Amino acid sequence: MNEHAREPKLDSTPPRGMRDVLPDEVELRDRTLTTILDVYRRRGFQRIETPAVENLTLLTRGEGGDNEKLIFKILKRGERLSAARDTDELADLGLRFDLTVPLARYYANNHARLPHPLKAIQIGPVWRAERPQHGRFRQFTQCDIDILGVRSEVAEIELILATADALSVLGLEGLTVRINDRRILASVARYCGFEEARFDAVFIALDKLDKIDAAGVVGELRKVGHPERAVSALMALLDESTVTAAAPAQLAQRLGETADGAVWRGLTRIIDAVSAAAGPRFRIAFDPTLVRGMAYYTGPIFEIRHQDASSSIAGGGRYDRMIGKLLGRDVPATGFSIGFERVIAILLERGRPDVGVPKTALVFEEETSHLGSILATARDLWDDGHIVLLELKGKRFGKQVRDLESRGFSRIVVFDAEGRPREAELSSDAGGGSTV
Amino acid sequence: MNEHAREPKLDSTPPRGMRDVLPDEVELRDRTLTTILDVYRRRGFQRIETPAVENLTLLTRGEGGDNEKLIFKILKRGERLSAARDTDELADLGLRFDLTVPLARYYANNHARLPHPLKAIQIGPVWRAERPQHGRFRQFTQCDIDILGVRSEVAEIELILATADALSVLGLEGLTVRINDRRILASVARYCGFEEARFDAVFIALDKLDKIDAAGVVGELRKVGHPERAVSALMALLDESTVTAAAPAQLAQRLGETADGAVWRGLTRIIDAVSAAAGPRFRIAFDPTLVRGMAYYTGPIFEIRHQDASSSIAGGGRYDRMIGKLLGRDVPATGFSIGFERVIAILLERGRPDVGVPKTALVFEEETSHLGSILATARDLWDDGHIVLLELKGKRFGKQVRDLESRGFSRIVVFDAEGRPREAELSSDAGGGSTV
Repeated sequence: MNEHAREPKLDSTPPRGMRDVLPDEVELRDRTLTTILDVYRRRGFQRIETPAVENLTLLTRGEGGDNEKLIFKILKRGERLSAARDTDELADLGLRFDLTVPLARYYANNHARLPHPLKAIQIGPVWRAERPQHGRFRQFTQCDIDILGVRSEVAEIELILATADALSVLGLEGLTVRINDRRILASVARYCGFEEARFDAVFIALDKLDKIDAAGVVGELRKVGHPERAVSALMALLDESTVTAAAPAQLAQRLGETADGAVWRGLTRIIDAVSAAAGPRFRIAFDPTLVRGMAYYTGPIFEIRHQDASSSIAGGGRYDRMIGKLLGRDVPATGFSIGFERVIAILLERGRPDVGVPKTALVFEEETSHLGSILATARDLWDDGHIVLLELKGKRFGKQVRDLESRGFSRIVVFDAEGRPREAELSSDAGGGSTV
Repeated sequence: MNEHAREPKLDSTPPRGMRDVLPDEVELRDRTLTTILDVYRRRGFQRIETPAVENLTLLTRGEGGDNEKLIFKILKRGERLSAARDTDELADLGLRFDLTVPLARYYANNHARLPHPLKAIQIGPVWRAERPQHGRFRQFTQCDIDILGVRSEVAEIELILATADALSVLGLEGLTVRINDRRILASVARYCGFEEARFDAVFIALDKLDKIDAAGVVGELRKVGHPERAVSALMALLDESTVTAAAPAQLAQRLGETADGAVWRGLTRIIDAVSAAAGPRFRIAFDPTLVRGMAYYTGPIFEIRHQDASSSIAGGGRYDRMIGKLLGRDVPATGFSIGFERVIAILLERGRPDVGVPKTALVFEEETSHLGSILATARDLWDDGHIVLLELKGKRFGKQVRDLESRGFSRIVVFDAEGRPREAELSSDAGGGSTV
């Protein structure tokens, strides 16, 4: 190497679209996860863990929809890469883009050693190489619960109550659960006269209703050449408040179906049970225009909205056919995922809550010969559950005291050369000013 | 696609060298992390988070030693990969192989918004593409604390006490802290007459003392051509119990140095302070043959051994020059990392402890019309902090009861068609046998 070459100063920012989390936010994140985990564990859910890395053969089977285009792929090791000519030859592993596809693999791999039914909690990072934009990152945390092995809508009732409860305990008020069923969407599409083979395209357009309104949805459907009669019929339905704000039984009647059918009865049961158990904490509403993005849903789908968020803060549904593709036999499955980053964004805006643990700083000179007794003082406080920070006395003691105060230390004890403790005066004390 | 082609059954195992974690182990891992985190937080340490993915320019600067050969590299996106001919052109990101290199970058990137000194906790997965072997995985958890900005050995004292305390609180007994200083290793090498430029190679050989004993180390040093006189001098030192079980002052004397020097005084201060604070929970011993692998250490180095583990369960040291390379000015730094997977291996062998939370299962028929009152019963118990599992009554109720019992449910309440609760008889009850 050139003797005169200087080491270039290295960029210390994280990779594009990734982020560092500062201590105060990590504390909020950890406290929030602990709260959610506690609610779920008390309901008998158990946390499971899968690796962050999965085989690309698993991640690219189509279950992930558009997310499969956003996979971070991992370079094969120890192979003659120069001979490889396309991505498939270069990579065989990828970072997971969600927690549902890995859950299906986990269940197929471990079902004999798992409780039946399995009530699983998953919390962890996922990665998507999305175009970086404000508030969206390429690594983010998901927080899912899933019930595998229960065909009854009791599973949906449990998931919705558990998730809404967890969000309530976090102090989120004004929550609305919106619910629909993929089979009702199919009934609507069939009633309007769309082609059965193109139902998915109809749902994808309808999914944008929040963003581009009914006229926009209809315009999009026309553009890609759905039958005009079907588009008009859908438009008419969307205009009827008896449809968009209906109870399932009313909509069934409007579509000429009998409300006694399993789909309609099931949905009504979920709404009634959740409604009765919700009390004043949250409400549940039937929304026949709700789609939820993923193609793997087969039955009820649901999400939770919060008054302060423009989009849902939790979403989920039933996906009875995903696990069968891996296991060889169908296992009914339902899941609900909290949009953890959105929840944190809401909680961050509220500012830092007082956690209530007393925080004391013990400040002493580096050369002290009384370290033993200072450590003993600290230990007594630790054993009482206090947060105790040991700090060397800095050159600018006034600033040091102010910094500690701003970090929430309500008591600062200074040890002198003889190891005698003395309380530092804080600006919040009567008399004010951080003297000493 | 060929109409007759069947979808091949997909392999449901995790990627090579990775693993799924079953619910009981996840619970133990979470409880262990919570305990460690609580001990650290009470001492004023704060958790920080960096992304799992870092730029390869950061990861391949030489700080990671051999770990840099084990990086999982991430394929670039949206580039003309076919034109790329070597790994450097194919990948610009990698999965982190430790938490220390990312910490240095984090500090350089965020220091203006961080407390000074920074007492950081990091807990998270790291990835190394090691040859898979029993009990070693390519994704594993590390749990580090670091103090950035403290030159005094008070930092080492805090780190050692905090880590040994955390391990003690986990119930690990018979802990020994071993401590040395890289500068003492240099004194020994200089005393023996090794070439200054080859000290690192001497330390790497010495690091294998536990595995290949003194004769093995000496043989290795001879093989790579170190001066025979130096090798013999080292062999003689290793044979002297006055050296291998010496106090720092004794070794200083033996090497013809004055024990008043900063290095010897500092080490003695750490040993004395830790020893006095340790009480009966653990002990600390000077070990002049201790090396610790990483090249970046500059001062005191230390590790913790447990009676049940053949290697250390925690390791760390001072690395005063790493951050300077990123920040442009030196920041003194010391860290201590718990080998979390080894700790879990020890705790797993002890079997499942009784967590003490009452666990009740509420069992009911799918068609019940009393779901509301069953949910109300559950809520009362949840609010009291119980774990309450809702379960549909299965076809084989006897087996269902036995399964629930084996999962620790000490109370099983069955609701009949009229919604009346009845306690199921458990095999552990007087009378035995899970009838009903």
